[in-house]
Amino acid sequence: MKKIRIGLLGLGEIGSGVYSILTQKKDYFAKEIGVDCEFAKIAVRNRSKKRKVQVPSSLITTDSRSVVEDPSVDVVVELIGGTKEAYQLVTQALKSGKHVVTANKALLAEKGDEIFELAARMKKWVFFEASVGGGIPVVKTLREGLVANELTSLFAIINGTSNYILTKMTTEGTDFKDALKKAQEKGYAESDPTLDLNGMDAAHKLAILIRFGFRGKVKLDDIYCEGIQRISSEDIAFANEFGYRIKLLAIAKKTPGGIDARVQPTLLPKDHILANVNGSFNAVLMHGDRVGDILLYGRGAGSYPTASAVVSDIVDIAKRYKRLEEESVITMAASRRRLKIQGISSILARYYLRLHVIDRPGVLAKIFQVLGSHKISVSDCMQQERRNGSAVPLIILTHGVNERAIRKAVNALDRLPVVSGKTQVIRIEENGGE
Amino acid sequence: MKKIRIGLLGLGEIGSGVYSILTQKKDYFAKEIGVDCEFAKIAVRNRSKKRKVQVPSSLITTDSRSVVEDPSVDVVVELIGGTKEAYQLVTQALKSGKHVVTANKALLAEKGDEIFELAARMKKWVFFEASVGGGIPVVKTLREGLVANELTSLFAIINGTSNYILTKMTTEGTDFKDALKKAQEKGYAESDPTLDLNGMDAAHKLAILIRFGFRGKVKLDDIYCEGIQRISSEDIAFANEFGYRIKLLAIAKKTPGGIDARVQPTLLPKDHILANVNGSFNAVLMHGDRVGDILLYGRGAGSYPTASAVVSDIVDIAKRYKRLEEESVITMAASRRRLKIQGISSILARYYLRLHVIDRPGVLAKIFQVLGSHKISVSDCMQQERRNGSAVPLIILTHGVNERAIRKAVNALDRLPVVSGKTQVIRIEENGGE
Repeated sequence: MKKIRIGLLGLGEIGSGVYSILTQKKDYFAKEIGVDCEFAKIAVRNRSKKRKVQVPSSLITTDSRSVVEDPSVDVVVELIGGTKEAYQLVTQALKSGKHVVTANKALLAEKGDEIFELAARMKKWVFFEASVGGGIPVVKTLREGLVANELTSLFAIINGTSNYILTKMTTEGTDFKDALKKAQEKGYAESDPTLDLNGMDAAHKLAILIRFGFRGKVKLDDIYCEGIQRISSEDIAFANEFGYRIKLLAIAKKTPGGIDARVQPTLLPKDHILANVNGSFNAVLMHGDRVGDILLYGRGAGSYPTASAVVSDIVDIAKRYKRLEEESVITMAASRRRLKIQGISSILARYYLRLHVIDRPGVLAKIFQVLGSHKISVSDCMQQERRNGSAVPLIILTHGVNERAIRKAVNALDRLPVVSGKTQVIRIEENGGE
Repeated sequence: MKKIRIGLLGLGEIGSGVYSILTQKKDYFAKEIGVDCEFAKIAVRNRSKKRKVQVPSSLITTDSRSVVEDPSVDVVVELIGGTKEAYQLVTQALKSGKHVVTANKALLAEKGDEIFELAARMKKWVFFEASVGGGIPVVKTLREGLVANELTSLFAIINGTSNYILTKMTTEGTDFKDALKKAQEKGYAESDPTLDLNGMDAAHKLAILIRFGFRGKVKLDDIYCEGIQRISSEDIAFANEFGYRIKLLAIAKKTPGGIDARVQPTLLPKDHILANVNGSFNAVLMHGDRVGDILLYGRGAGSYPTASAVVSDIVDIAKRYKRLEEESVITMAASRRRLKIQGISSILARYYLRLHVIDRPGVLAKIFQVLGSHKISVSDCMQQERRNGSAVPLIILTHGVNERAIRKAVNALDRLPVVSGKTQVIRIEENGGE
């Protein structure tokens, strides 16, 4: 039986989950899976901190370097987060001949090129199922289950905090601030939720999905990123009237101009399968050239769901341990080809526009004149009941138009004296999934 | 690079798909996956038959035995269907030291014990992703992605024909016969759809999911099986009034009395995620003790989706080829433990009852008396407007009650002179998924 020694970095939420699963289910893994895991060392920042799990103090160290360099360690499991120290430790682990399992999406999104190339040189594995979609086996599905396919598109709800907030705003009409407060009370949002709300967390995950789904290197900065902060309950209500829900989507589509890659609040038809993914759940909808649509849905965060993914990586390594050879290089390291990412300004989409207009005769004429002069044609339009002289919301849904044109038009609109405040702009996705 | 020689049995819908993927994408598999597949021999029943793909006639043979015994063949891919000849060929292939990939659910459901034990003895792999859920990587997810979990329940829509028919009946009010005709025109139903409509096809797939999801042997006959033939558009309309959709579900739940395993038409709340899986799509909702709910959704049938799964199995074998050892025995062969399946008569459920009652004074009293005398309590009840003397439908939803009691009660009801025809009985599932 393959015995494998684990060096664990970090004993927080996920680390505790990993420790408890591997210790509580030791027999099951040994008897039914044929894998025997044991912890060699566990590095923590603060010895005396209260833990969720009882760990023999002999295993605990505050010297993480001693863990990644311990000759008896086969696999280093990095769960400390952040990018600076984590990068040093992960690269040192690989140089010391260890395989690496990590849940660190920021690290892989920012330093993926360096890490995967080092792993390829060292013929070691870097596994990271837990870095995207928590307990959902989306990485394994991309790399193994769908190996016969080339992806043509990928639409993902991969930030639980944003999805929880948007769901609350949709089902209860809560405004953004209250929904965020609720999410923090429920533990779905961190005390500093910036990376969740500005879309960066989703962009990190999308960078990883693109690297392996579309097989090539991708620069994080090339991914256009917009968060949900500017979405109002008003927008959600208006979208609803037109038959749409608003979701924060991570999108990657193969186009003649390269990969169209973005994270953005998006209007989805109510009957779209992703429009019905609610609360803190995550979902990834992929379209493969042979398999068609595939959707994976589950818990995108939480101690045990994420630990479940980390453990599946550890078991995958243990099962193949000492039998890796070029497989590790070819299929586990990413392709060396650099993917061309299409600039946001050239994408084509339908748009939802919300303006506040002073209601005077001839106002609509002015506005449609501006749109027309930018070759933007309107598919739907709604104005609320008229209160003379005061600003009323005007909702416009456009036909397909490119981003550059819409931005020029919106600048022009915002300069009109009859338009008060800035125009709200949200993209619409109609397709992908039935 | 690992070169692997394939012996293909059958060149129908799926076989042609597999041939075209592996030949059209040969470069991609060689360069990006590091796997080089070639066809050694392809066995067909009828040489002269018109094929979807152009195959060099030198590869074609009508002697399938020569394929499974060809010393140059590494993997035998069985796509002929049926259980008799397929069993002989698959076992002969294993005895000749080949790995086996099959899409044959009937074969694995009926002969799984023998086949997996032989594979374990021969230290060879039997892969079968395509046997359940077409292109959806559900087997890989169960065995690898969710390896850290014990399943507590599994709810699956795994018969596309039934789901297409029920969807048509629900969305268009079509009756069963017309919906079936439409399914056959669309190619979603075979000319002889018996195994789809009576639930056996779903039961075959459920037997495979249970074997690997709950890790043990299971007898096909132990799985209670009911099809959709007796579902009327009337039932779908009434269910709708109570807020339910009717779906053909394959269900497996861990209970103190063993695994509760059944295939049955089921009332699901409209907001249940499986209630929104429509048309010919399949979906499997699993609950793991660590990961919680996981849903996989995609095309359950079709030449390319199914071929996509077959190819992923071939690649999995190719990547590990000559490096199998006990992994093949322990994690690829099923557990030798025999699972205890709970008898249907002892399951507890809520029930939908539809009776046609002659509308006379005191009729309801009689009916509720019968239910009461069997300790069955009613949660909802609906009777359509009264036409004196004629039979009118009476719909009753019960609270949780066990199957034995409901059957006794229904027998008693059907003997009442005021009840015309047989009482319709459909189980209700409230939980599983949010």
